[in-house]
Amino acid sequence: MKKIINEPGKIVEEMLQGIVKSYGNLVHQVEDSRVIARNDSNKQVGLVSGGGSGHEPAHAGFVGDGMLNAAVLGDVFTSPTPDQILTGIQAADQGAGVLLIVKNYTGDILNFEMAKDMADMEDIHVEMVVVDDDIAVEDSTYTAGKRGVAGTVLVHKILGHHARQGASLEELVSLGEKIVSATKTIGVALKAATVPEVGKPGFTLPEDEIEFGVGIHGEPGYRREKIQPSKELAKELVEKTLSSYEQQPQTVGVLVNGMGGTPLMEQFVFMNDVLTLLEDKGVQVTFHKVGNYMTSIDMQGLSLTMIDLATKDWQTALESNVTTISW
Amino acid sequence: MKKIINEPGKIVEEMLQGIVKSYGNLVHQVEDSRVIARNDSNKQVGLVSGGGSGHEPAHAGFVGDGMLNAAVLGDVFTSPTPDQILTGIQAADQGAGVLLIVKNYTGDILNFEMAKDMADMEDIHVEMVVVDDDIAVEDSTYTAGKRGVAGTVLVHKILGHHARQGASLEELVSLGEKIVSATKTIGVALKAATVPEVGKPGFTLPEDEIEFGVGIHGEPGYRREKIQPSKELAKELVEKTLSSYEQQPQTVGVLVNGMGGTPLMEQFVFMNDVLTLLEDKGVQVTFHKVGNYMTSIDMQGLSLTMIDLATKDWQTALESNVTTISW
Repeated sequence: MKKIINEPGKIVEEMLQGIVKSYGNLVHQVEDSRVIARNDSNKQVGLVSGGGSGHEPAHAGFVGDGMLNAAVLGDVFTSPTPDQILTGIQAADQGAGVLLIVKNYTGDILNFEMAKDMADMEDIHVEMVVVDDDIAVEDSTYTAGKRGVAGTVLVHKILGHHARQGASLEELVSLGEKIVSATKTIGVALKAATVPEVGKPGFTLPEDEIEFGVGIHGEPGYRREKIQPSKELAKELVEKTLSSYEQQPQTVGVLVNGMGGTPLMEQFVFMNDVLTLLEDKGVQVTFHKVGNYMTSIDMQGLSLTMIDLATKDWQTALESNVTTISW
Repeated sequence: MKKIINEPGKIVEEMLQGIVKSYGNLVHQVEDSRVIARNDSNKQVGLVSGGGSGHEPAHAGFVGDGMLNAAVLGDVFTSPTPDQILTGIQAADQGAGVLLIVKNYTGDILNFEMAKDMADMEDIHVEMVVVDDDIAVEDSTYTAGKRGVAGTVLVHKILGHHARQGASLEELVSLGEKIVSATKTIGVALKAATVPEVGKPGFTLPEDEIEFGVGIHGEPGYRREKIQPSKELAKELVEKTLSSYEQQPQTVGVLVNGMGGTPLMEQFVFMNDVLTLLEDKGVQVTFHKVGNYMTSIDMQGLSLTMIDLATKDWQTALESNVTTISW
């Protein structure tokens, strides 16, 4: 394993220090915690997300005006503890309640729910939206149901906009569930990530093979085969995504998300193929985003996320200005 | 070679299409060219940069209000041709002249100079600033003198701000030269990039070795040794950088730039070590940036850039808002 780190056991703490020292104009570390919170305070519903580390810039990169109020950083690929999440809730609470945006992994669900109960005892009204956008497989290594992956970032963005506009906690819960239903993601891996504390790749793929549907912690996908041209990969991912909707959407937003080790060049080549296919199918794309947003450490690969934009004000929400490190 | 591409020979064209289709709200392709230009026009001096592809998001990701007017995309690691650069100059020209910001590679210098001569014949006043911020080695595979690397992005940013503020071409040339003198970069590679048309890594490093001073096209550095903790890498890079100034700067901006295959997590761990060292040395850091800005396809590694911020309005220029894909 060749990585630019010190001790694997200190990687999250040191990364956190790197983030808050670099972007101290936007965010700060809540004292003695693994919580990164916004510097500015306001009276909106507080949005909190987080989970295991290793998915940078998610979620700390999305803390700021118009997106999250706080992010809670677990160890690499490990849920943060309930007391850390409670600290995040306290940091985000401005008196209007707090919404937790949680990717669907069993450990995260358990710990975020426990933190919610602890916050209830402090009279902080907390609700939770669970994101399960990964359509590749049902149930997985760490998940009952579908996994939560890159679509989570779009959930942050749209809910962040509406929270800033003054939506109530109840409105945001209802909106969040609608966004999650409209958001579908599927990925493809060329090479596994290496968790620093493990020291070797999470799985191995032959030099000429790829795996469709791999999760962001290297959870198994649904098929391995020989590497194909971008156009063929795009065809499979676009068709799987579109067919996961009950009815083919007419207008969508598209996020092509790099997994950490895949250059932007490849992501744009793939996006070009996706857009050509969608045009051929008569699907209009009104929002586009390409880059590393929800990574899997140094995994090579990418994911395709679509969001049905039939609801017009989601477009506005996706396009509105934010002040974050990484959106 | 496992990459998400179609034909290696079409990668730049397809990437370009991916960029302009995704971010058509900001930029467009100049017809029948490899030029990406801003949609909005204004009366400022036009700023044009570019060079070989493979360094994404540089330079197309920095086209927009407050940075570049146009980027010219050569083949991977290959200078764009003079006629393509001329097209970029024509697209950027608003009547106030055009400034070329060129990384110091022999091929780029030749072709940008030839394009400048061609533009002169069309009565477009063109000047050129050459960026040679890489302090690792003198002369290199494709370079006489020092190479131009990640510091170029800071040159784009500061000149872009001043161009927007109405600085004249002559003022920008003089300012550009001062910024270049104040900007120092040095990199370290863990694993070489693979150029798609070549199909194998540009050099090989043993599994436990790194190379200091590698260029963004895989040009040789100055020393290979066993992989070390981030703190030790930071020490070497910080000391080399500081000692390249005639006098140790008191206030600096710091850019930690990922080479394409290195996760943000490692970049932030490294930045944390850099900031600790600079604090110990009494150097104040007033501007910070961490991420993939000037990559080398899928190279694993990073570079450290420092800019002496003794000139106060450079800080303002670095912090001002821009409308680009990737700043």
